[in-house]
Amino acid sequence: MASNQQIVLDNRPQGEAVAGNFKLVATDTPALQDGQVLVRHHFLSLDPYMRGRMNESKSYAASQGLGEVMIGGTVGEVAESLNPKYAVGDKVVGMGGWQEYSVVDANTPGALRKVDTTHVPLSHYLGAVGMPGVTAWYGLVKIIAPKEGDTVVVSAATGAVGSAFAALAKARGCRAVGIAGGAEKCRYAVEELGFDACIDYKEHSDVKAMSKALKEACPKGIDGYFENVGGWIMDAVMLRMNAFSRVALCGMIAGYDGQPLPMANPALMLINRMKIEGFIVSEHMEVWPDALKELGTLVGTGKLRPRETVAEGIAAAPEAFLGLLKGKNFGKQLVKLI
Amino acid sequence: MASNQQIVLDNRPQGEAVAGNFKLVATDTPALQDGQVLVRHHFLSLDPYMRGRMNESKSYAASQGLGEVMIGGTVGEVAESLNPKYAVGDKVVGMGGWQEYSVVDANTPGALRKVDTTHVPLSHYLGAVGMPGVTAWYGLVKIIAPKEGDTVVVSAATGAVGSAFAALAKARGCRAVGIAGGAEKCRYAVEELGFDACIDYKEHSDVKAMSKALKEACPKGIDGYFENVGGWIMDAVMLRMNAFSRVALCGMIAGYDGQPLPMANPALMLINRMKIEGFIVSEHMEVWPDALKELGTLVGTGKLRPRETVAEGIAAAPEAFLGLLKGKNFGKQLVKLI
Repeated sequence: MASNQQIVLDNRPQGEAVAGNFKLVATDTPALQDGQVLVRHHFLSLDPYMRGRMNESKSYAASQGLGEVMIGGTVGEVAESLNPKYAVGDKVVGMGGWQEYSVVDANTPGALRKVDTTHVPLSHYLGAVGMPGVTAWYGLVKIIAPKEGDTVVVSAATGAVGSAFAALAKARGCRAVGIAGGAEKCRYAVEELGFDACIDYKEHSDVKAMSKALKEACPKGIDGYFENVGGWIMDAVMLRMNAFSRVALCGMIAGYDGQPLPMANPALMLINRMKIEGFIVSEHMEVWPDALKELGTLVGTGKLRPRETVAEGIAAAPEAFLGLLKGKNFGKQLVKLI
Repeated sequence: MASNQQIVLDNRPQGEAVAGNFKLVATDTPALQDGQVLVRHHFLSLDPYMRGRMNESKSYAASQGLGEVMIGGTVGEVAESLNPKYAVGDKVVGMGGWQEYSVVDANTPGALRKVDTTHVPLSHYLGAVGMPGVTAWYGLVKIIAPKEGDTVVVSAATGAVGSAFAALAKARGCRAVGIAGGAEKCRYAVEELGFDACIDYKEHSDVKAMSKALKEACPKGIDGYFENVGGWIMDAVMLRMNAFSRVALCGMIAGYDGQPLPMANPALMLINRMKIEGFIVSEHMEVWPDALKELGTLVGTGKLRPRETVAEGIAAAPEAFLGLLKGKNFGKQLVKLI
């Protein structure tokens, strides 16, 4: 038994999410039952998809229940075990939520996964070698499916997904172009993440200017686009897509606050015979082993060196999350809990 | 040599296409060179894609040149031949254009195809057993790829593509729902074409009303949508699409006059993990033999009985075409030339 601080969803956002939507509570962890383990979380992952769960409206998956601990990926170590497959001290990744400890039925398939921290730091299993990395892998490999020499573009380029996307695209001989907010992020994208070019959307703040910048960065047009943002940035990218190009639609962060964001010219999908496909990586568990293997190798060999923004302590999670939604983080947003 | 009346594109539309964009001219057919045949056209096909060709702007394919004979599919018979593979009297389908005769280099692959009129009337090779039929086949079989019991929807349901779509969908055990303009077309769709239901968009003239009508006609939601129209009808359909549904994007007739028509809520593509794919059937020649075989059998066995609207004489082609763009035709729009 341990004292466990938790963040629960107290009430749903009216438009923009605010700190008052969350509440910090403290409980004691329950006694373990047979097959269960108690995991002490080292890091909590904050991700844009959580915003969608806060709404009552139809979204990817079930809404986050009111009064329940916020959903979220976690890495940590086994603190107590009533399961023969897990020993105290094992490093594990799971969906422990916004709290310091979780009790897990470790026999449930997919509930907990042991990880090796010899070559990969524990926190990276929430980012480059975790859900965001596999998200980039699925969108690039399974939807965009680029040929060598193709030009591929990703928005939110310096985030956890974008960072992995760059390394995976370069490994396939593509020209990788990022879109990010601010000169510092764009410099980092090119100098550290391996992007061939990165466009600062704050410098090109309308469709026409953005489209012109994309033309310069993508002289052969765009064959594949990984969409994390939506809205006017997507409209600008659509204007540069080549015939038979593919769009992997993974996030529309710009529309989470409720107002539907239109697509200006969907006829371009027909004119350029494009394919646009929305996906959620958790529905494609069959690709995880292959994807994690490649991502682990890229990190282990230094070809993918993701940056992290780390908030301290569970009480800091709501503000860190709201900052993430506004692009204030630099790389993968984590909360350190120990 | 024969006197040949032709319709040429005289000038490009400013917004809506008008009769004054076209000009009727008369010439004599040239003397045949070795390998060529002279085809006397019996029927000219009028199709929405032609509107796109009239614009100078980037569209599917090259613009129609000014002063040139309008592009178009034709069926007819060989009137003279300097090609050993074609005899006078052979029935042939080709892209003869808006004119009474065409001279064809019959050795060019795909330029001319002999057809058998034993079980299939010659004109149907421009519709159900021609390009529109194969268009329906590709969108349904290759993009929507329905399972038995899936609900599939098509707009412009009583047109040449929609008619074939219904027969192909019913052959696969799907629930087929049409969208058409007017009670008479909707009755025809259900009674003659085999649709399980048909929604009159003129009776449900905004997104909300249309979406409600779709809910009633599609109680299990929509698994596949074949889009011939675009605009607000597509917005309404998007609200009823199921998870993992597919949209074959074939036409956006509502946007041909230049004004881009936005898509109201593209985030639905992500929320429902949809796939949307634009295509042009002429870029998928590999499917034509299989598709034409199935379509020919459906027509030959009476399971597909497409209706035709026939204008008389080449001079009537422009007005018939403008009527087609406004949905005045009932079934496949043809011009009879003999």
